[in-house]
Amino acid sequence: MMERMPRQGASLAEPVPVTISVDAMGGDRGPAPVVAGMARALADNPEIRFILHGDASKLTPLLARRKALRDRCEIRDVAGVVTMDAKPSHAMRNGKDTSMWSSIDAVRNGEAQVCVSCGNTGALMAMSMVRLRKIPGINRPAIACLWPSRNPGGFNIMLDVGADIRADAEDLLQYALMGNSYARVGLGIARPRVGLLNVGTEEHKGRAELKLAHDLIAGVSDAAEFQFVGYVEGGDIPSDRVDVIVTDGFTGNVALKTGEGTAKLIREFLSQAFRYSFLSRIAAVLALTSLRRLGKRIDPRQVNGGVFLGLNGTVVKSHGSADATGVSAALKLAVELAQADFPSRIAARVASLSAKGQGVGTSGAGLR
Amino acid sequence: MMERMPRQGASLAEPVPVTISVDAMGGDRGPAPVVAGMARALADNPEIRFILHGDASKLTPLLARRKALRDRCEIRDVAGVVTMDAKPSHAMRNGKDTSMWSSIDAVRNGEAQVCVSCGNTGALMAMSMVRLRKIPGINRPAIACLWPSRNPGGFNIMLDVGADIRADAEDLLQYALMGNSYARVGLGIARPRVGLLNVGTEEHKGRAELKLAHDLIAGVSDAAEFQFVGYVEGGDIPSDRVDVIVTDGFTGNVALKTGEGTAKLIREFLSQAFRYSFLSRIAAVLALTSLRRLGKRIDPRQVNGGVFLGLNGTVVKSHGSADATGVSAALKLAVELAQADFPSRIAARVASLSAKGQGVGTSGAGLR
Repeated sequence: MMERMPRQGASLAEPVPVTISVDAMGGDRGPAPVVAGMARALADNPEIRFILHGDASKLTPLLARRKALRDRCEIRDVAGVVTMDAKPSHAMRNGKDTSMWSSIDAVRNGEAQVCVSCGNTGALMAMSMVRLRKIPGINRPAIACLWPSRNPGGFNIMLDVGADIRADAEDLLQYALMGNSYARVGLGIARPRVGLLNVGTEEHKGRAELKLAHDLIAGVSDAAEFQFVGYVEGGDIPSDRVDVIVTDGFTGNVALKTGEGTAKLIREFLSQAFRYSFLSRIAAVLALTSLRRLGKRIDPRQVNGGVFLGLNGTVVKSHGSADATGVSAALKLAVELAQADFPSRIAARVASLSAKGQGVGTSGAGLR
Repeated sequence: MMERMPRQGASLAEPVPVTISVDAMGGDRGPAPVVAGMARALADNPEIRFILHGDASKLTPLLARRKALRDRCEIRDVAGVVTMDAKPSHAMRNGKDTSMWSSIDAVRNGEAQVCVSCGNTGALMAMSMVRLRKIPGINRPAIACLWPSRNPGGFNIMLDVGADIRADAEDLLQYALMGNSYARVGLGIARPRVGLLNVGTEEHKGRAELKLAHDLIAGVSDAAEFQFVGYVEGGDIPSDRVDVIVTDGFTGNVALKTGEGTAKLIREFLSQAFRYSFLSRIAAVLALTSLRRLGKRIDPRQVNGGVFLGLNGTVVKSHGSADATGVSAALKLAVELAQADFPSRIAARVASLSAKGQGVGTSGAGLR
């Protein structure tokens, strides 16, 4: 965990007490992998507490066999579930009695620091915006993901990976600022390198809004204390040229799922390769530990969890189809963010940039 | 080669004589890897011929050491080179005396069946459109790539991967039709399954032009004899749910480079894993053959080569940074396309669809 989120200046002697609010329902696989993932996360961090939202008649039996978890988990009985195919606008208007709504409200009320849900992304974002409200100065929240990379910390940050299918130049500027703050707080990088995703690195390439965003981001990089590396391409996402990759939510979502799909395909090819011959089967046994390490490194479930940025409160979106391993990874990320006091620090950074008049929201000169 | 492009009904007894026109200049690494790649391709297909376009004073020494290649390669001395950072419009207006122009013209004049270039993609597309002209009924050509997949043939087709950064609904429809023809001719699939790339598979998701394209493509699938599987996501690109993935050139290019970047990263992780311990080093030796097979399977260079669709003549775009392995893969693809008589067959299919009034170009009812 520490290699994943090295925090500068965090005191390990005094761990912050952490409560995670968990939406038990709404994932593709129902509450069972959610509860199993909680048990795993608790085994790694025995000090955390959970508030679990969902149908108590289904959740109680799942907790029955897990005494350690039961002792640190409060169930909030909520009947409604936001389905995966629900329209976000409908879920937002009619979702008050759902596990998703209830799990967000626990963060709103200060009972938990972070909310984790495997549910419908659009509905989760819409409800989070209504219940938690945007940080002053932010027009459009974004979802950021960690991407395995060649950098010493092992991860890059990409955003937006699916909060909104469109982003104009100013949205991309805000994503750059939020990604910069996330890299600073979450990855402990003093002066993050920020790149703008495009189809080439030449300055004349790409869509018009990208050229405008390029100039806007370049203009604030000094004040916001990041290094703007200009355009980057898909192949640079896992590279050590950059720490933060900025893009619209459509492109980011396609890139994220393409990367995950490629990793999954190669894992299958790898296990086929080792079943191929007698010698390769022996080799697989000899290399078991190394192969397991590799498997973990390229397993998309291990980096499960998109963080909603730009809200007064932290929400982590897990994959809808996450199994116990995936849920546990999302919960670990949530714990790390809570321990880093992430929401208040990112809000403070954005506020200080607004105060400098350096262009978050409409406060900057000439940004509209 | 046959497993990559199984051709139905092609007679292996009478190979078609193949001449490939090669742009020697304009790649990131100059002409040396191009000539080395030609030598490899010739070793696999001793019957092919080349016309090589570029600075003869640089090319002659490279051929000097390769007698077999020299005997089957004609040099066209051209002084000019289109640089990687040239604007397409500029290259098109001022590019007459370049190796790129000359290599396209050899296809235009019927001297070669296919042109291969490692040069500037935008310039290559712009020149190809001017010199070869679009097939009647096609508004916007596209670049299609092969993507390693779980399908029995081992590859799916994705387009557009970078001909144009924008595509409206009718462009996407045309990409579906061209991708369908490519899958039929190139992969030998009788009734290809076509999917439209989006950020979710639910019908209400995605951008407005995607919803319109969804309905347009669904409307022609019967007449064009393909199966429309609706929306697919990034994770489906290598799947066996689909044979052809349709998207705009911006998204397609990012997805392609992201997939390649992910594969490259995992290859690095894999070799690190096998250097990790004494046992894993022994394992690597035992599994050498299997690992080499795997390495080949996940090596982006092995599927190098984007095919320009929608033109009166076939152009294959190799990666700008391709080494000899990459160039040789692009040349093999070019040979396969030439042997399959690809350009005339795809033109015939598009013409027959136009005749049915089934919506390529402006001939279809209500497509604008």
